[in-house]
Amino acid sequence: MGHEQTIAIVGAGLVGSGWALVFARAGCAVRVFDPSPAVRDQVLPWANRSVLELADYDLVRSPSEVVKRIRVVATIEEALSGASYIQESAFETVEIKTEVSLAIDKAMSADAIVGSSSSGIPASKFTAGCVNRERFMIAHPVNPPHLVPVVEMVPAPWTEPAALQTAVDLMASTGQVPVVLAREIDGFVLNRLQGALLNEAWALYEDGIASLADIDATIAHGLGLRWSFMGPFETIDLNAPLGIADYASRFRAMYHGMQRDTPVAPWSEATVARAATERRAALPSQGLAERRAWRDGMLTKLSAFRKKNGVTFP
Amino acid sequence: MGHEQTIAIVGAGLVGSGWALVFARAGCAVRVFDPSPAVRDQVLPWANRSVLELADYDLVRSPSEVVKRIRVVATIEEALSGASYIQESAFETVEIKTEVSLAIDKAMSADAIVGSSSSGIPASKFTAGCVNRERFMIAHPVNPPHLVPVVEMVPAPWTEPAALQTAVDLMASTGQVPVVLAREIDGFVLNRLQGALLNEAWALYEDGIASLADIDATIAHGLGLRWSFMGPFETIDLNAPLGIADYASRFRAMYHGMQRDTPVAPWSEATVARAATERRAALPSQGLAERRAWRDGMLTKLSAFRKKNGVTFP
Repeated sequence: MGHEQTIAIVGAGLVGSGWALVFARAGCAVRVFDPSPAVRDQVLPWANRSVLELADYDLVRSPSEVVKRIRVVATIEEALSGASYIQESAFETVEIKTEVSLAIDKAMSADAIVGSSSSGIPASKFTAGCVNRERFMIAHPVNPPHLVPVVEMVPAPWTEPAALQTAVDLMASTGQVPVVLAREIDGFVLNRLQGALLNEAWALYEDGIASLADIDATIAHGLGLRWSFMGPFETIDLNAPLGIADYASRFRAMYHGMQRDTPVAPWSEATVARAATERRAALPSQGLAERRAWRDGMLTKLSAFRKKNGVTFP
Repeated sequence: MGHEQTIAIVGAGLVGSGWALVFARAGCAVRVFDPSPAVRDQVLPWANRSVLELADYDLVRSPSEVVKRIRVVATIEEALSGASYIQESAFETVEIKTEVSLAIDKAMSADAIVGSSSSGIPASKFTAGCVNRERFMIAHPVNPPHLVPVVEMVPAPWTEPAALQTAVDLMASTGQVPVVLAREIDGFVLNRLQGALLNEAWALYEDGIASLADIDATIAHGLGLRWSFMGPFETIDLNAPLGIADYASRFRAMYHGMQRDTPVAPWSEATVARAATERRAALPSQGLAERRAWRDGMLTKLSAFRKKNGVTFP
């Protein structure tokens, strides 16, 4: 990777700030723009705090050097001037993504590439009108991107394969784990997998099979342990003597036997309200911020744990 | 917990052996029976190796004392005599579970309780004919139980609530995380959640959206990190400013938008065969055993990591 390359961050909420840290940590010059002065003012203080947390766990060298690479700017033109890659993390509606993409399109260098942090809306829904649309794509991270490395790379029908490949190589060079989708699909891979599991979880909860806390425990103290260092296919591949085909022949009937008589209608208002009551009893609203800080601390420690134990991709 | 209580293990493969270690580690006297002399001969050597691995990560005190509590016996009568709790881990078919349950029923003390390690077949399908059937239930672990703490407790329609509660208390006292289901459902909670995620993963793979390795990476380097210390509901509860109800109102439409036009037919022979080819290219058959050992080593280290960081239930 050309460590001297310049990266632009457009939209500097938590996701955009995390991206700034990812690229600065990798040695890039980073310019951050957000239309809100209040949001811009938070970027460097947040980056300073976060980089020190990373340093505590040996996840970054020269923390002050890293933050020095981040410059917050007041116009999109200043952010994009000379940037070879632009990460857009605007609020996720088709309207806003369209507006921001057009603004980027206007200000970007002729050979720059744009990745959107969109978590489920494909790029074709908001880049059709861009002059440079063949260099727009999805680069969807998990929050926070500096602690969770996967990034879904999803081309629009008009995305140039070479542009996609350049962005994939850039991501890999920063230490992220790019996953490449062959084509667009609503929700991409990550949120489709999350959605499938959540749909079943909602159904079990709605049917009164188990409490919210007990359903959570089957993952947090069960399935989730292996999934923090190997995926679901590798998990089943190792769970039968002769591998995944052997697993399928042993358990196909069990999985086929889990069909529901009545279709699932997850996310109903009434069930969500009941779940919210159960969650707020377990964790009152005023405790949410502290628990999020605990979660991010755990992700930092887990990153160090994974690094120490060589959990790499592939 | 009465640390002097005696526990019987019936079926001493990997799951049964893991259970022996769970109860011995907690201070119980453990008697292990398996009909196969070859399987019986493996129990103590395996326990000796495993307990030393636990000791390496400060996950057990006095390893030699732990193994001394395990006695391997040649008859089911000897195993069950005086046992207050019996963990059955026989091969998972209705026929074998029925046969073994009847043998246990005949030899058990009048007030003993029986938990089956069945991963998906409910107890009502194989304990109907037992005289003591009101004290039979499911106690389904994740493999290996001494490294992954969750255990699904599933009563049959005839299971006495008091017997269920006694078994739940016993599990909690050993450091396992018992999850209580209100009633029987095929696959219980854990494998229904796993099945839902796998069904979607198979569909994405079959549709050519992403490779097996890339689908795995979205979990192993993405979603699975948070899920190794918090469940899916707590995850979304923290992922919107005002909690789970706020999350639902923001993302309900996205999740509803992920429906498929054509129904999913997962686990098809052809797709599984293609997946097996891809997996065997990534990891040849002769490497499976070594990778399983790596996995169990990672689970051991992760247990130590979770213990150190106070990841407890609830």
